Amino acid sequence: MMNFQENAVCKLFGIEYPIVQAGMIWCSGAKLAAAAANAGALGLIGAGSMYPDVLREHIVKCRSLTARPFGVNLPLLYPAIDQHIKIIIEEGVKIVFTSAGNPRTWTQKLKDVGITVVHVVSGTRFAEKAAAAGCDAVVAEGFEAGGHNGRDETTTFCLVPAVRAAVDIPVIAAGGIATGAAMAAALALGADGVQVGTRFAATVESSAHPAFKEKIVQTQEGDTFLSLKKLVPVRLIKNKFWEQVHEMELRGADAEELAQVLGRARAKRGMFEGDLDEGELEIGQIAALVSDIPSAQEVVRRMLDEFEHVLNKLARYRSNH
Amino acid sequence: MMNFQENAVCKLFGIEYPIVQAGMIWCSGAKLAAAAANAGALGLIGAGSMYPDVLREHIVKCRSLTARPFGVNLPLLYPAIDQHIKIIIEEGVKIVFTSAGNPRTWTQKLKDVGITVVHVVSGTRFAEKAAAAGCDAVVAEGFEAGGHNGRDETTTFCLVPAVRAAVDIPVIAAGGIATGAAMAAALALGADGVQVGTRFAATVESSAHPAFKEKIVQTQEGDTFLSLKKLVPVRLIKNKFWEQVHEMELRGADAEELAQVLGRARAKRGMFEGDLDEGELEIGQIAALVSDIPSAQEVVRRMLDEFEHVLNKLARYRSNH
Repeated sequence: MMNFQENAVCKLFGIEYPIVQAGMIWCSGAKLAAAAANAGALGLIGAGSMYPDVLREHIVKCRSLTARPFGVNLPLLYPAIDQHIKIIIEEGVKIVFTSAGNPRTWTQKLKDVGITVVHVVSGTRFAEKAAAAGCDAVVAEGFEAGGHNGRDETTTFCLVPAVRAAVDIPVIAAGGIATGAAMAAALALGADGVQVGTRFAATVESSAHPAFKEKIVQTQEGDTFLSLKKLVPVRLIKNKFWEQVHEMELRGADAEELAQVLGRARAKRGMFEGDLDEGELEIGQIAALVSDIPSAQEVVRRMLDEFEHVLNKLARYRSNH
Repeated sequence: MMNFQENAVCKLFGIEYPIVQAGMIWCSGAKLAAAAANAGALGLIGAGSMYPDVLREHIVKCRSLTARPFGVNLPLLYPAIDQHIKIIIEEGVKIVFTSAGNPRTWTQKLKDVGITVVHVVSGTRFAEKAAAAGCDAVVAEGFEAGGHNGRDETTTFCLVPAVRAAVDIPVIAAGGIATGAAMAAALALGADGVQVGTRFAATVESSAHPAFKEKIVQTQEGDTFLSLKKLVPVRLIKNKFWEQVHEMELRGADAEELAQVLGRARAKRGMFEGDLDEGELEIGQIAALVSDIPSAQEVVRRMLDEFEHVLNKLARYRSNH
């Protein structure tokens, strides 16, 4: 049995284990967030792919499925952000993870009504800004993570200790974390907890299309690539759509041309509707280590078992243990 | 005090601590390799920037500076590889790290004369090939590492556990490792030891130009970038030369055009002669965490102190500790 009573992330959210199920577009609705919460992790509803009324439905549903803490992940660049914020406050959500955008715009407004606010960052200077804006914690997300990514391409190994050294608030590591060994590594690097996306995207309770879940299981090392850097960098599975984008990028296509080919609703098409050829399939490098589709509870259980095993193994280096 | 008696990397090389000072062009001659060896790590002479007679001088000199094990890092694509191999065997070098090229070509020949052979890989399938070729260990080097890099862009966090699961020989993690915390993280991910480049490039005993060492100290997060992907991917500091290359890459320049601009001896010009504008400056992302130029011994001492500190911290999660 592990002892997380003094862990800063557990204390901040009132959860059992310092594991956050990442809020992901098209994957993490009420069902996944509630399952993660019931397993002792922090569950997050991903608002980025939800219209305001859909977000409200998921919040209400999640509360009916769990009595434990859960939150909402909110990309600050979402067009209907005002409505999202209004609903989050009206529905009494207690925890909000914000990403993209400027943390100064909304953090204080959310904190004024008692909401715990965490901002996702890809760089140390953004972590410092988030802390200055009053955020309660930051997620430090490395280059290996799925979906949208930073321009500096700093990996989890390099980002986490730098962010740890720069801010006094809790640091949650993200990118490349699907196992208890990775959780131990992240904590060794100075993180207080971990955010796990890819591993939870391929669970029973994920709302991803079954074909996309199966695709995650099949994804091998080298099958994802950080692409569309002239728009917003995003890590994609190398499918037919990606090949078209990549070829364009190799010949120097500009942002306008890329935006045209990307079009709209590609992510929905791929991840929610299961079009594996023409859809945009966002996933992290660590998909290569994902080989089945268990329940969210089983993911948490495996992570904790392996975390304990790894700590016991490392303890052998301590001559006085 | 840490106990490394059962560590597979320490046993393989007959060294005190599972730390390998990376063989780096223009940085790691006899002086650095001997200093690392005398500090209890494995020191490596980087043959990639040495003519055969220069390599022989460094081997002889290194033996005069230390009675402890040291080795040679040998890029297998080096034009005078036959002469390098001949000298390594004649001089009785006991440990060789090979990189690039096919491990099948030389491993058996080296092992036949009793040399311990380690191959550096950027992907799991290369690790499997190295093990099949009879290598005694592999270095699993992630995307964040300096210098030449793999095409799959797999980070240390994702690569190490995958390689660990794929081969039975010892795994040495590389890329992003400059501290004892990173060493603990690498061991948590399943590595048996770590290879450290960037941190040793900025030491007193490094043969890098003082201006380049100072540049490493000044390098911040986001100041390096994996470039020249149409030739061989290499992580460079964003200097004036890099800006020219990057601009060309953004507009889709082909390999021929890039090779022409790169020309010859750019790495020597930057790293050994100290031309910070026009030289090729190879360094890892973790340079952002390097803030001084200590001795190699001090680097090892700090890493071990922090490793112990981090293990003690992690032990608090074990309720039965």
